[in-house]
Amino acid sequence: MERVKFSAREKRREVLARLEGFGHEIYRQLERGLFPQIVMPSRSTDNIYYDENLRQYVLGEKKKRRSAGNIGHIRSVAQLVWMAFFVHELTSNQKTSTLRDVFYSAQAYDIPFESQDESDNIITDLESILGCAREDFNVFPEERSAVFGDLTIEYTVPNYEGKRLNLTSHPDGVMIGPALTSAEFIETSADKIIAVEKGGLFTRFIEERVHEKFNAILVFLGGQAPRSTRYFIRRLNQELNLPVYIFTDADPWGMHIAMVIISGSANAAHLRDLTTPDAKWAGVWASDIVKYKLPSEKLDDLDIKRLNELMRDPRYKEDELWQRELNMFMKIQKKCELEAFSRYGLTHIVDKYLPERLREIE
Amino acid sequence: MERVKFSAREKRREVLARLEGFGHEIYRQLERGLFPQIVMPSRSTDNIYYDENLRQYVLGEKKKRRSAGNIGHIRSVAQLVWMAFFVHELTSNQKTSTLRDVFYSAQAYDIPFESQDESDNIITDLESILGCAREDFNVFPEERSAVFGDLTIEYTVPNYEGKRLNLTSHPDGVMIGPALTSAEFIETSADKIIAVEKGGLFTRFIEERVHEKFNAILVFLGGQAPRSTRYFIRRLNQELNLPVYIFTDADPWGMHIAMVIISGSANAAHLRDLTTPDAKWAGVWASDIVKYKLPSEKLDDLDIKRLNELMRDPRYKEDELWQRELNMFMKIQKKCELEAFSRYGLTHIVDKYLPERLREIE
Repeated sequence: MERVKFSAREKRREVLARLEGFGHEIYRQLERGLFPQIVMPSRSTDNIYYDENLRQYVLGEKKKRRSAGNIGHIRSVAQLVWMAFFVHELTSNQKTSTLRDVFYSAQAYDIPFESQDESDNIITDLESILGCAREDFNVFPEERSAVFGDLTIEYTVPNYEGKRLNLTSHPDGVMIGPALTSAEFIETSADKIIAVEKGGLFTRFIEERVHEKFNAILVFLGGQAPRSTRYFIRRLNQELNLPVYIFTDADPWGMHIAMVIISGSANAAHLRDLTTPDAKWAGVWASDIVKYKLPSEKLDDLDIKRLNELMRDPRYKEDELWQRELNMFMKIQKKCELEAFSRYGLTHIVDKYLPERLREIE
Repeated sequence: MERVKFSAREKRREVLARLEGFGHEIYRQLERGLFPQIVMPSRSTDNIYYDENLRQYVLGEKKKRRSAGNIGHIRSVAQLVWMAFFVHELTSNQKTSTLRDVFYSAQAYDIPFESQDESDNIITDLESILGCAREDFNVFPEERSAVFGDLTIEYTVPNYEGKRLNLTSHPDGVMIGPALTSAEFIETSADKIIAVEKGGLFTRFIEERVHEKFNAILVFLGGQAPRSTRYFIRRLNQELNLPVYIFTDADPWGMHIAMVIISGSANAAHLRDLTTPDAKWAGVWASDIVKYKLPSEKLDDLDIKRLNELMRDPRYKEDELWQRELNMFMKIQKKCELEAFSRYGLTHIVDKYLPERLREIE
């Protein structure tokens, strides 16, 4: 299998080059005596489309223009320029930060963000100008998830550069943070990725040696997967050429956890490289509740409301599986959890369900 | 420094012996032709006292009695006996589980738990009968937190028994799960433990090499620390004889995260060994908001309500620091976050605040 080479160093150089390009453009305008203007794609809902080829939301042709010559724009132009400067510092010094941290850091420079929302929004502007995710310029999520399995990685972060770790080294799993996200993948014997929503099941899978029995790298999502984890899953899929199977609770929230890994979200329509279009939602399906006679609960009003939203969502329309399972949820009006398989014994999910399901969808 | 020897194997043997003792007692009664009775400490609020010597809540003398001869008790007696059987299986097979999993597992045995609450409650009954925490009989929390620093551990779990890992091996941190909780501590050069509430700051501390500059093992709490993490911190404190410093947001919720690590919670009054009475809440204090001129927000109604609850809590009455800071919160009516130090630059918290605070309280 050929492996697409990933180089954290090249990626960092590219991001820095784009940031510097953005700065040079501002300078060029100033030197020509013009009020600097910044043009970026509009992210308003009327400019968001679902792209069936890319299998994700994208932005249309509409642009928005911010000019320092417009009194109403001065504030956001200044904020954007500072933001570009600040994340350039972060990236060139290889320091990471969080959305919250950036908001407070602005105060060190007397840059007036009135709220976290305002600062987050400017970061998203910068993402859409540069065409790269904030993790690329070292702004990471607060949430943490984890991974376990036979994959040897090589770090590219300071103090660890060149060091290697096999991801079976710690049987509780290792965290997916900035160091792992930017590591090179060196070697693996795995032939698939199994991602699970919940920590208890992640531990159960390790204890039952799912990584060996099924030749799998196990990813713990921690509920709705943080963006850096979605990016990490994409890298596993693309660089190692491994199929990805996602296991969640059988409810509209669980199926949407899988969908966001597969097709991203509408508010990341300005970004690429965060989705894994070939990943598969492997269960627990609504139809499994019936098939395996699983203990279940009645869908509540909030669940039904969410199901109706998903039914209108274009991402759920393209695939027979999504449609079938949405309809099944509506029909049986029930939901259940991954742990429900324990009604047949703790190891049933590993001994019976997992091999049956993988055979079915592989 | 002398190290109290921890042996996971001995501990497991002890837990199994207590479970078997519980079973034998049931048998003895049956053999004598009696309806089995189970006696355990009452956990009702009128039997919970604060013990100033142990510096935690404890249960008083009141007992509750469950008899299979009482029609109203048959159900809970049967559930308790099954629970003891089930966790004996878990513990002797060295498999772990979660509260949720146990609830579903009961259905495999036709044991009728009507709800998760009912099943959780029976687990707590069993804890108070055996005098050990559910983690001791392999029922672990769903939540995960993490650790990083120079500590070499040796695993005792199957497939890893005898293997060692240094906890600086992965610069994003390794997860605190069943394997780490039951590992032996072999060697450390650290002379303190620094625990932080938030993931972003945990990563910042690793990047800024706090573990080296301050000779510290870093623990990421993930908000309110899961019980297995509180137990892990206690082990670090007691076995390695290292002081523990806890950093949280400056608000009533943050200070209570520290308090629960230090003194436990009222609903764990039946348990020992989950608290670290000598751990210190090292910040961010209400008085730091004033002293360091930190960006802050107004306390909202919920914060004030919580502050008033804490003021009535006996755990907050025994120490000058708690009292001073509770009063300061009330006076300034403000709260702030750990990240607020970024207003002085990203590394200010490590370069200035951390050394000043440690000098102050060490």
